[in-house]
Amino acid sequence: MPNYRLTLSYEGTRYRGWQKQGNTGNTLQEKLENTLSRLLGEIVEIAGCGRTDAGVHARRQVCSFRTNQTLDCTETLRRLRDVLPEDIGALSLEEAAPRFHARLSCTGKTYCYRIRTVETPDVFSRRFVLPCPGKLDTAAMRQAAEALCGKRDFSAFCSLKNRKKSAVRELREIRFEETPEELRLYFTGDGFLYNMVRILTGTLLEVGLGQRAPESMEAILASLDRAKAGPTAPALGLTLWEVYYDG
Amino acid sequence: MPNYRLTLSYEGTRYRGWQKQGNTGNTLQEKLENTLSRLLGEIVEIAGCGRTDAGVHARRQVCSFRTNQTLDCTETLRRLRDVLPEDIGALSLEEAAPRFHARLSCTGKTYCYRIRTVETPDVFSRRFVLPCPGKLDTAAMRQAAEALCGKRDFSAFCSLKNRKKSAVRELREIRFEETPEELRLYFTGDGFLYNMVRILTGTLLEVGLGQRAPESMEAILASLDRAKAGPTAPALGLTLWEVYYDG
Repeated sequence: MPNYRLTLSYEGTRYRGWQKQGNTGNTLQEKLENTLSRLLGEIVEIAGCGRTDAGVHARRQVCSFRTNQTLDCTETLRRLRDVLPEDIGALSLEEAAPRFHARLSCTGKTYCYRIRTVETPDVFSRRFVLPCPGKLDTAAMRQAAEALCGKRDFSAFCSLKNRKKSAVRELREIRFEETPEELRLYFTGDGFLYNMVRILTGTLLEVGLGQRAPESMEAILASLDRAKAGPTAPALGLTLWEVYYDG
Repeated sequence: MPNYRLTLSYEGTRYRGWQKQGNTGNTLQEKLENTLSRLLGEIVEIAGCGRTDAGVHARRQVCSFRTNQTLDCTETLRRLRDVLPEDIGALSLEEAAPRFHARLSCTGKTYCYRIRTVETPDVFSRRFVLPCPGKLDTAAMRQAAEALCGKRDFSAFCSLKNRKKSAVRELREIRFEETPEELRLYFTGDGFLYNMVRILTGTLLEVGLGQRAPESMEAILASLDRAKAGPTAPALGLTLWEVYYDG
């Protein structure tokens, strides 16, 4: 069966996240599977690289799917753009290597969390940026971020207990980008646990607000206890920014 | 009566433009007058600097209004932010000189028209940018833009005939900003006629698409005939970018 790689972006505001939940929810995976199945006249199952939560956006999300037919990628992409809602953008479609799988072949991801640090509202980015007006101690936040990077057990930064599966992930970098109005945190790693970026952000924000010492990160990690970390930051500020594959 | 200057931004998508039309429409002026009147317990009339069309946005719009009471600007701004819908942002509020009037005191404005020149959709800017995929001849567009600048009678670039009032405006500059995905046209002038920026843009786009010669601008201006210019570009790509006052 021919194998395809579809790259998307979407605004997550009105969806219940990426992953389908029976046939009940308005999820991105269902929306795409239904759209592609209708378009191609066969049942299509889609694997997504990142399972974004409800309300989380994607600047770049890669999916893979197999079909019984060989597709004209240019034509299929054009038709797909015609029928997808305006909050889902089909960026590219190409035939993939037979063993390519969007999630299993992925070697890393970058998420971006955007924080607006001034009182004045920005109507144009309001669906993508968390308002958090006030002075943040970014030096303390950088120190804490440094301590969180590496190959670690991130159980304390995961909303779901998964007793069987490993919670070890390699958090390669937390990059800071600051403008007078906005702070952006770019998290790059080999993979992320459920709500991990949002809990990391909530914890770093507490450090930035002086409510938590930057030296306390080691103890939180060592505890493996979700209750020791900060709150889960709201979904709207989070965007799946980039996904990586070998070659 | 104390006089105030209120600076706003808004996403125009769901409004029928700035200017109130009886009490029928969902206009920005009505929305603001009603909100401020309720907040202050007196009837407030607002003058806006630019009368943006239905669907046109404002990065910066200045208004003025008078009240029977002296306002605590910080507190009033905070309360205003609490009650305005999320697509209207109150940027600042300050007491103004007694004779200040948002429209009459204005010395110039800049509008920005955004054009997306690639096929790939961008879900994040979709409400603010006109999709116009394909190669635009920006050298020809610049030549045409040059010919349009100056103090001229812009009757050919106005949707409404106003026989009595002058259609002479000084178009000071049309600045081009190009990225691989987007072309932005910044129009700066002392004032703009009804639909003028959108007709200028529609005409320049025809030049960019090779459907109209850049040398034809003089003849269009001289004709004073709306039918000789290009189409009115859609509202969604247009944003009132900046407004200017002396001092």
